[in-house]
Amino acid sequence: MDPHGIRAVYRLRVAAEDAPRRARVLALEQSIEMPAEAVLDAGVLERVAARVERIEALADGSSLARIALAAESVGEEPGQLLNMLFGNSSLLPDVELVDVDVPEALAHRFGGPNLGIEGLRSLVGVIGRPLTCTALKPIGSTPGQLAALCRTFAAAGIDVIKDDHGWADQASAPFAQRVAACQAAVDEVNAARNGTVTLYAPSLFGTCTQMLRQIELARARGVRIALIAPMVCGVATLNGLRREHPDFAFIAHPSLAGVGRIAPAALLGRLFRLFGADAVIFPNHGGRFTYAREVCLAIAQASRAAWHGLKPALPVPAGGMSVERVPELKREYGDNCMLLIGGSLLAAREKLYERSREFVEAVARTETPADA
Amino acid sequence: MDPHGIRAVYRLRVAAEDAPRRARVLALEQSIEMPAEAVLDAGVLERVAARVERIEALADGSSLARIALAAESVGEEPGQLLNMLFGNSSLLPDVELVDVDVPEALAHRFGGPNLGIEGLRSLVGVIGRPLTCTALKPIGSTPGQLAALCRTFAAAGIDVIKDDHGWADQASAPFAQRVAACQAAVDEVNAARNGTVTLYAPSLFGTCTQMLRQIELARARGVRIALIAPMVCGVATLNGLRREHPDFAFIAHPSLAGVGRIAPAALLGRLFRLFGADAVIFPNHGGRFTYAREVCLAIAQASRAAWHGLKPALPVPAGGMSVERVPELKREYGDNCMLLIGGSLLAAREKLYERSREFVEAVARTETPADA
Repeated sequence: MDPHGIRAVYRLRVAAEDAPRRARVLALEQSIEMPAEAVLDAGVLERVAARVERIEALADGSSLARIALAAESVGEEPGQLLNMLFGNSSLLPDVELVDVDVPEALAHRFGGPNLGIEGLRSLVGVIGRPLTCTALKPIGSTPGQLAALCRTFAAAGIDVIKDDHGWADQASAPFAQRVAACQAAVDEVNAARNGTVTLYAPSLFGTCTQMLRQIELARARGVRIALIAPMVCGVATLNGLRREHPDFAFIAHPSLAGVGRIAPAALLGRLFRLFGADAVIFPNHGGRFTYAREVCLAIAQASRAAWHGLKPALPVPAGGMSVERVPELKREYGDNCMLLIGGSLLAAREKLYERSREFVEAVARTETPADA
Repeated sequence: MDPHGIRAVYRLRVAAEDAPRRARVLALEQSIEMPAEAVLDAGVLERVAARVERIEALADGSSLARIALAAESVGEEPGQLLNMLFGNSSLLPDVELVDVDVPEALAHRFGGPNLGIEGLRSLVGVIGRPLTCTALKPIGSTPGQLAALCRTFAAAGIDVIKDDHGWADQASAPFAQRVAACQAAVDEVNAARNGTVTLYAPSLFGTCTQMLRQIELARARGVRIALIAPMVCGVATLNGLRREHPDFAFIAHPSLAGVGRIAPAALLGRLFRLFGADAVIFPNHGGRFTYAREVCLAIAQASRAAWHGLKPALPVPAGGMSVERVPELKREYGDNCMLLIGGSLLAAREKLYERSREFVEAVARTETPADA
């Protein structure tokens, strides 16, 4: 195995003639974090210091630097991989992390999605179309109000009902009561229905220790999937949970992940999947957020591409989507995605069931090709 | 208590005439995450939706928006506070989080530093001067090599010897062996010395569960302080550890924290301290990083200022400092700081002891005032 098998591509926004020097400095910053001449043990320098493999000047004046990092420096720890990829360089405004790859052995050590796309499809019993997803809002609601939303959404046939990522253990609906009420509401609808199954995905919060307790509690109620924000709780936590609960599924939320200088496809598409996300929510173009279309397509591509034998993760375009955009979303992302519409369904107020049905039917409908 | 007692100040880089609308949208995004008109329960809107309190147009064309968030929406969870302050808005490139305050009750719930500046001073037995700190590098070294460094640094009288933040459980020096070797080396020197005590601070890694085990193991060897990167492991982890180990001290490392759009004084100075950092490392101006002088001074100010009765945290200017800069650093940060010099000491190679002594003596020396 190549001991320097972790590859990172950085964009350096520096003058092209300065790029080689900056790349060398970056390679040291992201590995031994000291000047090469201060290293007494030549073996360490050889084995551990990162190496600049290639520098490419781009038309926009920036440069791409490909740097090889030693797997030894990561030691099989997810947080440490992030540390080595972008820990200190996050403090440098002219450096962006553009792409990343890891050796197959390390990929298998982290393990990727537990269930992946096929596993999620089996859970809900859906093939041949995108999955549908919505969110329980607003914070401040009671378990009874949330359960009522669950019944409506489930009756309309939505596949996955997730907590808003803002749900933790707020007094209006503490985790244990919320999960009991919402899962019971979903169970009731599922019991009366043939075919597909609606899943409820509660939001995990706090430390790994707390989240393990939350999963235990939720499992006891029949929950099989949860929402987690890896940049808030730490990527090691996601990876630790997937390992402890190998039949459980995780939807990754991008909270705090758009902090600028890690390319979304690398962070959400590759790293979240690597650490165990079965589905990856991202802010789709044309909604409340500003990711460009090509950025969104790159996230979807990275989450589904063949990669070291890891299961693919389901891309989940979200963030201000509407029923009207379903045909476009299906054309853009194909069948292997999950469409998430939250606030725009709730805006129908007393027509929530009807609007949710429109969502479900729009997703199920066989489209006439756009150019027909 | 004011139910909307969490105050956040955002810089909006939008046209001034658009700032009021954007601030209202941001207030909803960071609280109920749905349009106000979609909320069925008026009580929830009243209690939970964030409110725009003030908008101020700045000379540079940007605007500052002060937004009041409901403590109810956070539910006493550190990650959820970050979520509410900047989770989704991290995905918006024209929004920065500039400042934050929390109600006193929430501050006490999180608890702040266990030991604070006075507690750290008691541990090392130092008054009337800055503490000194250095780092164990490079990754790839063996426990024996690291212990030798510890002996040299401790013999030179350095107060705190911390692991580089890149240390996890790498094969060359697994945590258990590294901690045993380094603490034994430091103990040996301490036993032969009167007066001050040198502390060894190992780097914690992985999940909260793993870190709790690491602290247990380290405590058994006599360790009283550790290094932690809150943005890598999640702020809830730092807060959970400080709660489980109320007599233990934590040095916060800024890895992954410079991701751009949270003002460093708010994140490192306020939030890290709030969640339990006793000392806060930051990249000082004029070193390998690019934080401006006023940003660095603002971090130090925020970490030490009177705030809801929380203990002050020790600011630790770092990132390419040298012995030559000690007089300037002392003038700038005063006595209540810890000066961290890592690679520049190691660059002395076989003169490491002498160079470390120069560091210790420069810090101990009573300076002639700069204007004398």
